[in-house]
Amino acid sequence: MIRVGIVGCSGYTAIEAIRWLLRHPQAGIVAATSRQADGSCISQMHPELTERLSLEVEDLSPEQIAERCDIAFCCLPHAASAPIVAKILQAGKKVVDLSADYRLSSADLYEQWYGGTHPDPERLGTTPYGLPELFEEQISDATLVANPGCYPTSAILPLAPLLKAELIEAEPIVVDSKSGVSGAGRTPKMVNLYSEANESFIAYGVGTHRHQPEIIDILHRSTGAQVDLVFTPHLVPMDRGILSTIYVKVKGEQSANDLQTCLKDFYKTQPFVRIVDHLPATRNVTRTNFCDIAVRQHGGWMVLLSAIDNLTKGASGAAVQCMNVMYGFDQTLGLVDQ
Amino acid sequence: MIRVGIVGCSGYTAIEAIRWLLRHPQAGIVAATSRQADGSCISQMHPELTERLSLEVEDLSPEQIAERCDIAFCCLPHAASAPIVAKILQAGKKVVDLSADYRLSSADLYEQWYGGTHPDPERLGTTPYGLPELFEEQISDATLVANPGCYPTSAILPLAPLLKAELIEAEPIVVDSKSGVSGAGRTPKMVNLYSEANESFIAYGVGTHRHQPEIIDILHRSTGAQVDLVFTPHLVPMDRGILSTIYVKVKGEQSANDLQTCLKDFYKTQPFVRIVDHLPATRNVTRTNFCDIAVRQHGGWMVLLSAIDNLTKGASGAAVQCMNVMYGFDQTLGLVDQ
Amino acid sequence: MIRVGIVGCSGYTAIEAIRWLLRHPQAGIVAATSRQADGSCISQMHPELTERLSLEVEDLSPEQIAERCDIAFCCLPHAASAPIVAKILQAGKKVVDLSADYRLSSADLYEQWYGGTHPDPERLGTTPYGLPELFEEQISDATLVANPGCYPTSAILPLAPLLKAELIEAEPIVVDSKSGVSGAGRTPKMVNLYSEANESFIAYGVGTHRHQPEIIDILHRSTGAQVDLVFTPHLVPMDRGILSTIYVKVKGEQSANDLQTCLKDFYKTQPFVRIVDHLPATRNVTRTNFCDIAVRQHGGWMVLLSAIDNLTKGASGAAVQCMNVMYGFDQTLGLVDQ
Amino acid sequence: MIRVGIVGCSGYTAIEAIRWLLRHPQAGIVAATSRQADGSCISQMHPELTERLSLEVEDLSPEQIAERCDIAFCCLPHAASAPIVAKILQAGKKVVDLSADYRLSSADLYEQWYGGTHPDPERLGTTPYGLPELFEEQISDATLVANPGCYPTSAILPLAPLLKAELIEAEPIVVDSKSGVSGAGRTPKMVNLYSEANESFIAYGVGTHRHQPEIIDILHRSTGAQVDLVFTPHLVPMDRGILSTIYVKVKGEQSANDLQTCLKDFYKTQPFVRIVDHLPATRNVTRTNFCDIAVRQHGGWMVLLSAIDNLTKGASGAAVQCMNVMYGFDQTLGLVDQ
Repeated sequence: MIRVGIVGCSGYTAIEAIRWLLRHPQAGIVAATSRQADGSCISQMHPELTERLSLEVEDLSPEQIAERCDIAFCCLPHAASAPIVAKILQAGKKVVDLSADYRLSSADLYEQWYGGTHPDPERLGTTPYGLPELFEEQISDATLVANPGCYPTSAILPLAPLLKAELIEAEPIVVDSKSGVSGAGRTPKMVNLYSEANESFIAYGVGTHRHQPEIIDILHRSTGAQVDLVFTPHLVPMDRGILSTIYVKVKGEQSANDLQTCLKDFYKTQPFVRIVDHLPATRNVTRTNFCDIAVRQHGGWMVLLSAIDNLTKGASGAAVQCMNVMYGFDQTLGLVDQ
Repeated sequence: MIRVGIVGCSGYTAIEAIRWLLRHPQAGIVAATSRQADGSCISQMHPELTERLSLEVEDLSPEQIAERCDIAFCCLPHAASAPIVAKILQAGKKVVDLSADYRLSSADLYEQWYGGTHPDPERLGTTPYGLPELFEEQISDATLVANPGCYPTSAILPLAPLLKAELIEAEPIVVDSKSGVSGAGRTPKMVNLYSEANESFIAYGVGTHRHQPEIIDILHRSTGAQVDLVFTPHLVPMDRGILSTIYVKVKGEQSANDLQTCLKDFYKTQPFVRIVDHLPATRNVTRTNFCDIAVRQHGGWMVLLSAIDNLTKGASGAAVQCMNVMYGFDQTLGLVDQ
Repeated sequence: MIRVGIVGCSGYTAIEAIRWLLRHPQAGIVAATSRQADGSCISQMHPELTERLSLEVEDLSPEQIAERCDIAFCCLPHAASAPIVAKILQAGKKVVDLSADYRLSSADLYEQWYGGTHPDPERLGTTPYGLPELFEEQISDATLVANPGCYPTSAILPLAPLLKAELIEAEPIVVDSKSGVSGAGRTPKMVNLYSEANESFIAYGVGTHRHQPEIIDILHRSTGAQVDLVFTPHLVPMDRGILSTIYVKVKGEQSANDLQTCLKDFYKTQPFVRIVDHLPATRNVTRTNFCDIAVRQHGGWMVLLSAIDNLTKGASGAAVQCMNVMYGFDQTLGLVDQ
Repeated sequence: MIRVGIVGCSGYTAIEAIRWLLRHPQAGIVAATSRQADGSCISQMHPELTERLSLEVEDLSPEQIAERCDIAFCCLPHAASAPIVAKILQAGKKVVDLSADYRLSSADLYEQWYGGTHPDPERLGTTPYGLPELFEEQISDATLVANPGCYPTSAILPLAPLLKAELIEAEPIVVDSKSGVSGAGRTPKMVNLYSEANESFIAYGVGTHRHQPEIIDILHRSTGAQVDLVFTPHLVPMDRGILSTIYVKVKGEQSANDLQTCLKDFYKTQPFVRIVDHLPATRNVTRTNFCDIAVRQHGGWMVLLSAIDNLTKGASGAAVQCMNVMYGFDQTLGLVDQ
């Protein structure tokens, strides 16, 4: 039984990780940490866990976490995460880091988009990006995995195989993404109040969202392509789900069918990517680790559509999937019916 | 043209009052105050007002407000409101107070439910409760009106005529009320985040909600009846609307029809109460000042159902209606079509 | 491996049963029937099943179903269900009937509330009601189980122990219930359109809903008490979940604590009933088979609050739970984490 | 007082037109027609109209409509509308047609996208498109106006001035649009059920939606530009509102500021287009006739964002606006606060 610690257990990615880990036959949650720890049980913080997980929330040091666990799921904000991750690694334990701290390839890029000096720059560039569909080998050897961003997962999975196979142009690529509100986190902000987000639809972070460089960086890392890509995130009045509508131009005479065949072929051994004929709906992937992808032709454009659950495949489901790979389990262990 | 000031303009009742006042043919908004005032226009705070209301948000003293306006709509929290109201009245201007400060009949009752000493106890008991359907005469003579609570409006309007006519017993009365989330206000709290309130239904404040004594007090004031009433509020994942399901016992052989006739008769000259044959839906009163009421028999019980928009008839629409009565206008001026 | 057939596989209870059965370690879905069968795969009807369940939807006779399966989950409308159930039983196989056909104790009661003659009256009165919390022994011996209605589950679980222990009066009992829209089924009707149900809250079936006699009948069967109970269902703009707010009077001097203790004691070996200290939220039981129950005092009343997922504990989760009992498995098999 | 008839009064555009017309000081609704007419009042069909509009729904012939009204708002489906419109015009009365029948410039284009022969081809090409912001003069002289589609309104208003001023390229243009569910109409279909549309986000009609040729045709008619444009509509789980995210390339060295200045200048006398600095939210235009537009630069792209209420500026508000122009009233009469 793998002993798992949840570092920063108060938010939505943490509770989602806990839900999946409770179903996992080879993992047990042995610690949950929070700076708000007051000696009470985690079911005070997340009442749905009543009688399901009896565990005190504690304010543990990285060393204490390392002592207690085999692997830590770090659910902390960026910048706060890296120093703690570094110490847990130093103590010889594994980490899946759900923050953005280890996703980018260089400290320069990090500093340009996140500001400030990176707390642990040596590990950038060598830490695998937690998409087993693209980096399975690196993940299987790793002690640290950078869990992907939610939008990037929805953009990279449909684009990478097509870029690699040189079926589409590296520009223009327009990624128009729409996410449920849980992506905004659990910290109270006016803009995320029910009466603000409900019955409204908005774009945000136009031209400035940090997932844009992540998409470009990882596409480069996985395919060699240097794409010129515009990315716009939007907020949908629903809990969960991301749908990305991606506009690309094909090279030569490729048809929608050709692109679909390429994707099917690329992902034929991957259990969580479904190349579907129907138009993807976020509803169909809710509370699953699947990514549904479809292709449509539209005049001179190809339109790629991808749907994930932002908290599962876009966060904590992917983290469990990475853990499975790190421990040599089947990718799907605890994540699908069997 | 009546000059209106909005005191405490950042919240939902304030913006709702502004929306209605912009439509009012005899009123103009001349001031909007907030302690967060930073010299910017009110459309920064409420972007929907862009090009509709060009007014700087200011941090004005009660005296400055009184100087500028004929009547103030006070949209402040309870306890914060009374001291300011008192000063505006002292300066000779009118006030509709949307807080709870002047609703109850006695300082004792206020202190029991709201804690602390009432800042302006002399006006309790003499300030009319802003339901023109029950207190039109007092409101027409008043300089200060206590705007009703949202739940109380939905409970008092169906109950008062039946208690007055002694068609129903004073106990048991069960008031099971359900409200949209805007009733919780615009201050960021975790429980009101989209991802907490959405796709969930909860009761809250069971046995402790301050609208219970308000309902009992005002039913007594308007009918003489001393009811024994249990009230439970619930939160519905929607923006606006309250539906109250009220269970009562009839005296003698009264039928649902008799109760309906009594209500129709009582409200026959009242423009905003509709006694309907169909089951009320909050949708049918959204963004209107109507209260829809229906009656159904169910075994030995009568079930009264009432629907209002919590921000309109339950708050700012009622405030405009009171203003109309205070100035001798038709109750409906600016509040309905034509 | 138990071979399960889903009879009537197009609706919401069917897909929910499929979801749970896919996780069940001892059950496999071997048939899915529908009169709309056109030779296509079940993932055409329910796209979320793509690559998860490869099964043709067929228009099978009861005899064919019996031949293929060990147990059938009948997800048909009332009146349509009983004739098919009878034939599957006759062929020697087990059935969990999710319709209302076998829930009531007598054909008279059925005819009074559902109209028409009952198609299989002999089995009424002897078919166990599928709440293992109350009828575990009967269910364990049964070949047919009447799966409970969603509202009745939320009302019976909190009431039965308190009536049995004679801690509360048999009248008055007010059950004010609120359900997500999935309870209305998947057949297109105007009232269930998104743009009708969204941002609205309504009561329906006031005084006429068929779950009222079911609650009264089963409370009598399980406790001997003949209650006088008023039940009002409401529609909440959300997918899933039922919250019931139940108003009762205690006998003698019972406190909220006494009632809570009685409930805790009664359900101490039951894995799916959680007596909680906090106020239940439907969110906390979403996509689980739990029923959360709390007690509050409020003047002379006790308020019981119970929350379930209407499609899980209120329908298909309960059906799997019954199957577990019928086969001697642990109640929780396939239904909770481990 | 202008006598208005609502032809086809059961759907969402009809009730929205009625709401606005009830507020209009110069218009009165004198007839409401439906093939489902059964002698009952329109408030049976739309309960929110109880005590607000006392009018029998009738099954009137076009000739009877023409006799009764000065102007008809035709809220019928495409193909059903044109024959009735033609007869009302023939009888000498005015029409605003809310269907798609008269929007396109040629019968060929109509037949290509809508199938079948156009019932009244002579009027194509000469009927003005009901965007007063672009075609005010033609509308003011017209007896028939083709009310714009909802998506086209949100796309044409930001694009037309920039194409006319030749600040942007005619291709590539990517229009990624998101609409609330009311756009799908009131006819019961499974896909529009609450439990299907809620908590999901989907694209639909990718590459095949009829609003694409409408956008291209009207942009050509209003600016002379022949654009190459890809348009993808999506369904958002909310009642009302459209947000369009539009990706364009500038000619030469234009900045976001230059584009914003061009738009501000173009619309400076237009009361319903607001060029805003903040990112538009559909919430800010809900139940108003405004179109909010913003511009952002993003690498080599310009991103235009526009928000409207699909039922108001995208349908019935625009129809009232057109009526105002046809009668020489101020565009805003009955549509904004004053």
